[in-house]
Amino acid sequence: MKTRAAVAWAPNEPLKIEELDLMPPQKGEVLVRIVATGVCHTDAYTLSGQDSEGVFPCVLGHEGAGIVEAVGEGVTSVAVGDHVIPLYTAECGQCKFCLSGKTNLCSSVRETQGKGLMPDGTVRFFKDGQPIFHYMGCSTFSEYTVVAEVSLAKIQPEADLNEVCLLGCGVTTGMGAVMNTAKVKRGDTVAIFGLGGIGLAAIIGARMSGAKRIIGIDTNPSKFAMAQKLGATDVVNPKDHDQPIQQVIVEMTDGGVDYSFECIGNVEVMRAALECCHKGWGESIIIGVAPAGAEIATRPFQLVTGRVWRGSAFGGVKGRSELPGIIQQYMNGEFALSDFITHTMPLDDINTAFDLMHEGKSIRSVVHY
Amino acid sequence: MKTRAAVAWAPNEPLKIEELDLMPPQKGEVLVRIVATGVCHTDAYTLSGQDSEGVFPCVLGHEGAGIVEAVGEGVTSVAVGDHVIPLYTAECGQCKFCLSGKTNLCSSVRETQGKGLMPDGTVRFFKDGQPIFHYMGCSTFSEYTVVAEVSLAKIQPEADLNEVCLLGCGVTTGMGAVMNTAKVKRGDTVAIFGLGGIGLAAIIGARMSGAKRIIGIDTNPSKFAMAQKLGATDVVNPKDHDQPIQQVIVEMTDGGVDYSFECIGNVEVMRAALECCHKGWGESIIIGVAPAGAEIATRPFQLVTGRVWRGSAFGGVKGRSELPGIIQQYMNGEFALSDFITHTMPLDDINTAFDLMHEGKSIRSVVHY
Repeated sequence: MKTRAAVAWAPNEPLKIEELDLMPPQKGEVLVRIVATGVCHTDAYTLSGQDSEGVFPCVLGHEGAGIVEAVGEGVTSVAVGDHVIPLYTAECGQCKFCLSGKTNLCSSVRETQGKGLMPDGTVRFFKDGQPIFHYMGCSTFSEYTVVAEVSLAKIQPEADLNEVCLLGCGVTTGMGAVMNTAKVKRGDTVAIFGLGGIGLAAIIGARMSGAKRIIGIDTNPSKFAMAQKLGATDVVNPKDHDQPIQQVIVEMTDGGVDYSFECIGNVEVMRAALECCHKGWGESIIIGVAPAGAEIATRPFQLVTGRVWRGSAFGGVKGRSELPGIIQQYMNGEFALSDFITHTMPLDDINTAFDLMHEGKSIRSVVHY
Repeated sequence: MKTRAAVAWAPNEPLKIEELDLMPPQKGEVLVRIVATGVCHTDAYTLSGQDSEGVFPCVLGHEGAGIVEAVGEGVTSVAVGDHVIPLYTAECGQCKFCLSGKTNLCSSVRETQGKGLMPDGTVRFFKDGQPIFHYMGCSTFSEYTVVAEVSLAKIQPEADLNEVCLLGCGVTTGMGAVMNTAKVKRGDTVAIFGLGGIGLAAIIGARMSGAKRIIGIDTNPSKFAMAQKLGATDVVNPKDHDQPIQQVIVEMTDGGVDYSFECIGNVEVMRAALECCHKGWGESIIIGVAPAGAEIATRPFQLVTGRVWRGSAFGGVKGRSELPGIIQQYMNGEFALSDFITHTMPLDDINTAFDLMHEGKSIRSVVHY
């Protein structure tokens, strides 16, 4: 069949809208019609050529929602017509990781996914016979895409796909890091570095967890109003201070925060986020993706005196098991997704979404097919 | 009164046995007759001049056990004749840290202790009128010493002071890091980097916790026999491998260990210890004290993919509350301390203890008064 898709032909080039050939879903695979997709910093990161797993040409996009159009052999967990969210973190329920009960990092399709391939080592997208790689197991910048069954969360048909697509990455990542990875509790003090989509979602998670004080930190003060609307009790611009930001936060909080979250991908900010944690118990969670080769550093004394350094991927959420519960919270009105969607556009204008992101003007642009 | 003590007059000079004047215990202080004291790497670290908190001249020693000889005004928790272990990590029960229930890092005497002073900002040791600084709130390299009440654990009088002195630092630190900080569970796989006193104690803690596989790592193979006696199931010498040690451990364990412990104080080893942890859940605990200014580093991807980096001080143990329980386990025969004591000597020979340590010939030397 044919599908319209935005193809990344090479690093740092605008995406090009193409009509591609899409092969039918094979064993354990599902054809999904994407209804809406967010455009995330990770798409831009890969497009920049810095992602060591980036392969070109490819169809980017990993924050989508859609409807099952066809299923391959042996697929039992979803059927034609089901509403689904593609997952870049699969959940097979059978690998060492899924069975551990300790992590959401399923290994079932990880190896091929990292190479831009379907689990059988081939691709489904072609342009004039040339293979086009998949991306993060999702490739949601295509009206139709083929996804492994283990990489699809079946969701409530009542949920608005134009909004819940954001639960495919950013919002779940930020909320989950706070609620699953850190397990912020009522009365805690938290610092959130970076007030893009992930950081704002972390603020929502902190508010839902009952955090007493939620400090939002960004060098772009135009982000502050939304952060405060969503629950930040304090906002800080590091540029307004001569001291290192970690020292500013430690002084603001009489010793440091209980939890901090790095939502940018900057290794210097990761250090600041750790070092603004309270001695004895403060924990810092890295969410942002750093440039290839970049390293975090600190004095080990920071850890020996009780701080903990950890990370979070997809908010620690097991997509197939847990996304329906998060969507139920959304439908109950416990949090809103509309605040995140600053721009919408058709696929033809997808490059504008990247421009808005780079200019710091959008939280999320959502592409509607 | 007079006391015989080993004085560190200046960095990198042998200790000198002196007769010092010792002032009586003031309000909230206790005079202790030290019966035995271990000699720890931290004493050598401070003597080397690298410890930013090191002040000279001072009376070193922080791993002792003794008997209360006199109490100052207002002291209620110990009485003359009580057997005690001086604590470099106090436990006041009233500060923000003690009340948090999350850490053993009591702040009550921390500030003055770090300057070599008693809580009132003065010293009790003098030589011909010259003040001699205290060390880590303990100064156990003196037959008599004055210690803050909050820095004394009252212990069972039946426990052999010549052995339980080691619970004042090294053995508690290693066992506690495994049992309190990491909370190793039955069936876990652990890696222990550095097989000195702390590392061997960590092995004991891992065995007591029911760890299935206990991998001891050291570049000095003469350490392996004792490690195996105490419970190591595997011993590895990094010098026997061309690959980085983290890779060796990952391959030995089909993906990495559940917990690792750095018991040396080498920032490169700290990195290896983190990176040999299993993706998704492995945790690495830094116990060793690194040289001033040294920094740990890794790629943040290590944390984002589920590894956790933390540290441990005095094994996370609250000395006054918890040491009696550990001593009960020792008296019940759940672990032995005699294996650690490779050398004993009178105070006059204390410099030999440092020589043996530097030559890697001792686990612990214990000085008997």
